[in-house]
Amino acid sequence: MKVAVYAGSFDPVTNGHMDIINRSTKLFDRLIVAVLNNCSKQYLFTPEERMDMLCVSTRGLKGIEVDSFSGLLIDYMVNKDANIIVKGLRAVSDFEYELQMASMNRKLNEDIETVFMMTSAQYSFLSSSLVKEVAMLGGCVDGLVPKYVGEKLKEKFNY
Amino acid sequence: MKVAVYAGSFDPVTNGHMDIINRSTKLFDRLIVAVLNNCSKQYLFTPEERMDMLCVSTRGLKGIEVDSFSGLLIDYMVNKDANIIVKGLRAVSDFEYELQMASMNRKLNEDIETVFMMTSAQYSFLSSSLVKEVAMLGGCVDGLVPKYVGEKLKEKFNY
Amino acid sequence: MKVAVYAGSFDPVTNGHMDIINRSTKLFDRLIVAVLNNCSKQYLFTPEERMDMLCVSTRGLKGIEVDSFSGLLIDYMVNKDANIIVKGLRAVSDFEYELQMASMNRKLNEDIETVFMMTSAQYSFLSSSLVKEVAMLGGCVDGLVPKYVGEKLKEKFNY
Amino acid sequence: MKVAVYAGSFDPVTNGHMDIINRSTKLFDRLIVAVLNNCSKQYLFTPEERMDMLCVSTRGLKGIEVDSFSGLLIDYMVNKDANIIVKGLRAVSDFEYELQMASMNRKLNEDIETVFMMTSAQYSFLSSSLVKEVAMLGGCVDGLVPKYVGEKLKEKFNY
Amino acid sequence: MKVAVYAGSFDPVTNGHMDIINRSTKLFDRLIVAVLNNCSKQYLFTPEERMDMLCVSTRGLKGIEVDSFSGLLIDYMVNKDANIIVKGLRAVSDFEYELQMASMNRKLNEDIETVFMMTSAQYSFLSSSLVKEVAMLGGCVDGLVPKYVGEKLKEKFNY
Amino acid sequence: MKVAVYAGSFDPVTNGHMDIINRSTKLFDRLIVAVLNNCSKQYLFTPEERMDMLCVSTRGLKGIEVDSFSGLLIDYMVNKDANIIVKGLRAVSDFEYELQMASMNRKLNEDIETVFMMTSAQYSFLSSSLVKEVAMLGGCVDGLVPKYVGEKLKEKFNY
Repeated sequence: MKVAVYAGSFDPVTNGHMDIINRSTKLFDRLIVAVLNNCSKQYLFTPEERMDMLCVSTRGLKGIEVDSFSGLLIDYMVNKDANIIVKGLRAVSDFEYELQMASMNRKLNEDIETVFMMTSAQYSFLSSSLVKEVAMLGGCVDGLVPKYVGEKLKEKFNY
Repeated sequence: MKVAVYAGSFDPVTNGHMDIINRSTKLFDRLIVAVLNNCSKQYLFTPEERMDMLCVSTRGLKGIEVDSFSGLLIDYMVNKDANIIVKGLRAVSDFEYELQMASMNRKLNEDIETVFMMTSAQYSFLSSSLVKEVAMLGGCVDGLVPKYVGEKLKEKFNY
Repeated sequence: MKVAVYAGSFDPVTNGHMDIINRSTKLFDRLIVAVLNNCSKQYLFTPEERMDMLCVSTRGLKGIEVDSFSGLLIDYMVNKDANIIVKGLRAVSDFEYELQMASMNRKLNEDIETVFMMTSAQYSFLSSSLVKEVAMLGGCVDGLVPKYVGEKLKEKFNY
Repeated sequence: MKVAVYAGSFDPVTNGHMDIINRSTKLFDRLIVAVLNNCSKQYLFTPEERMDMLCVSTRGLKGIEVDSFSGLLIDYMVNKDANIIVKGLRAVSDFEYELQMASMNRKLNEDIETVFMMTSAQYSFLSSSLVKEVAMLGGCVDGLVPKYVGEKLKEKFNY
Repeated sequence: MKVAVYAGSFDPVTNGHMDIINRSTKLFDRLIVAVLNNCSKQYLFTPEERMDMLCVSTRGLKGIEVDSFSGLLIDYMVNKDANIIVKGLRAVSDFEYELQMASMNRKLNEDIETVFMMTSAQYSFLSSSLVKEVAMLGGCVDGLVPKYVGEKLKEKFNY
Repeated sequence: MKVAVYAGSFDPVTNGHMDIINRSTKLFDRLIVAVLNNCSKQYLFTPEERMDMLCVSTRGLKGIEVDSFSGLLIDYMVNKDANIIVKGLRAVSDFEYELQMASMNRKLNEDIETVFMMTSAQYSFLSSSLVKEVAMLGGCVDGLVPKYVGEKLKEKFNY
């Protein structure tokens, strides 16, 4: 069975992430969406809130598990018996960073492969940080994030 | 069953291609290595020679089929009941071209997905055209192509 | 009066070009769409056919002139009393080439400015050469080019 | 009337910014140079100081207004009846970030267009942050910033 | 005599840095490896620790001096009678930043040249910050840094 | 003694090439400017004309030899007892191609190093092919190429 992991901060999940999740489910037998908790990073949403938004947004999709992890991704993958990392690429700068990470991960454990998917053109400009900035300044995020995430952003920023 | 197609000119197959082929076989149930015959392009090797070099080089690998095609890749894939395109990425310029092709292929048939793998660092500088140039000028291609391909290059260039 | 020139081969005009043309008309008082005839280049369509496709596709748009030229763009612009070059950018490789051309044009005539617009995301993968390749192989170009251009491509390739 | 906005931190304005300002005034009927006050960012100069340096540096240029804003750029533009955003591009990394911002701004308000100009080659290496670093370490910033800005940097760093 | 300076944070030195150091010694008569102390930056290791790791790792190499500096690199170079800056390039993003720095340094002192070397492919994914992240999370850094540096990382993170 | 080779088509030499030549002579004891004769490529000028233009343009510079070669650069270098390849970088696309070539050359002969220099900003848009295109269309190439080369271009294109 081919088990893939799609890891990230998901702070919060955007429609760009959802695009990768939807398309990945057709490629692999099982997909684990894994929320990263990096204690040296600051997040807008707690790990629980980020997982909750993912659970609600992926409801109805088959073969998906939402989980969270800290530490090295490759250690987490060994624990979960997963050997494929899924990554979405939007731009050249993504590409370089992800190439670096994929090379490091292969160096650390050569049984684990990283596969990349291109984010659909209409979401290529989307990032969690840009969405947060727009929401913080009172801009409309309809069409940028799942509906439930839009509500949670409104609650956070009281608008 | 997840059937993937790795298409290209393979004129000739290099160790960079072999790296992607080897790693892809672990990700999908079946991998078709498809030699493109584009009548408006000039090749060093005939389609039969290119397929022969691929067959010899992939001997012993499980779940692999070597084939050839002309026309649109997506039409070929529908015929073969395959829905995943595998691509190797080496550099930023690859990335942009492949992003363009992947977007076009999704536009033409949205059931077909393209996944990308990073070529291993030690082969990141390799291309069929560079290998041909080196061989034509009498340089040594050991370690750049499978042994059998090296012999065929020697025959072509009489050195 | 601000007169801008949008120059290119337009062999043939695509919906990506049409996107830039439509948006440019809002920025400048007059827009000249100028078909380049470079005698050292091979085209699928004659200059007359390329101009015809542009005329039909831009019918109804205000402040637009379709024209053709050969020689240096900056010489053509001086003749037309135009001082703004409009360029569409899709990708990093476009960016570098266009930066080179814009710098050269400023060196040759510093009164002429180049302004760049980003091609809309849904057309970012489109190019005339890719459209021709798809059409030649019998693929469907609906949504990629104006309807009239689609008919002309069918005539050229007899399909 | 074509009203364009050139927005940025201008902390402080450099000769690269001045190059874009000078050239933009020839393209549009009116240019608003808008100093961004982002309360989550730390600046070397206050908004008033940044506006003062811009006012002094643009003295004598026609059709220019120096202003400041906070919040979403597109909201500010609607208030000012402006519909063109001017951006200077220096490098590929600029290009990707600005492409992302331009796409987001079109998503938020499709009546607003972003046009890009290439920074002249001799200023392509300049950025406000690099200028501040050089000045802080006692390096000479002549030719990098307007004369008045050079004096203000000297005052800040007491050298 | 051609004296070159290879400057950086070296927090800590990696095998990628060692690759550039080893290869540079063949190109120039003398190489100064200069540890930067930028008081506005936070480091994992003190300047003394960073110099110590470099001294131990470069032991046995001829024509090398390990030193530290603060302030502008070009001022340091004039003091040391050095006129060549050596830089390692790994990726496109390195390239753009280093191009900016090299242009600024030439502007500040045109007698000083910057030369670039490509980091060997097998180290192209390595960076000090990635190594620190892996070590902090308990990953194995063998082959990524000199042996002595690996021990020091273990001491810092108590693992 | 450090002997470097600056190889290229030089069809014809531009002021961008001259910039690299001038600056390289300060870095190495001897610089060989080597004109490549690739029989599968078409040139505007013969090898003799290209060498003649280089000889005239580098007259007065010390430590320079103008030569020509065919075949593999690394074989030529061994013959000339040279072990350093000098390359000029202008843009990201240069960078990727040159990285590929430098990696291949190291694979073929690991005693040979490639060092890169950034072309000065004012020449970053220059290339031999762009110069030829401008000259062919009757544009002015003053400031783009050495004076003698300008005359030779005029003779070729009869203008």
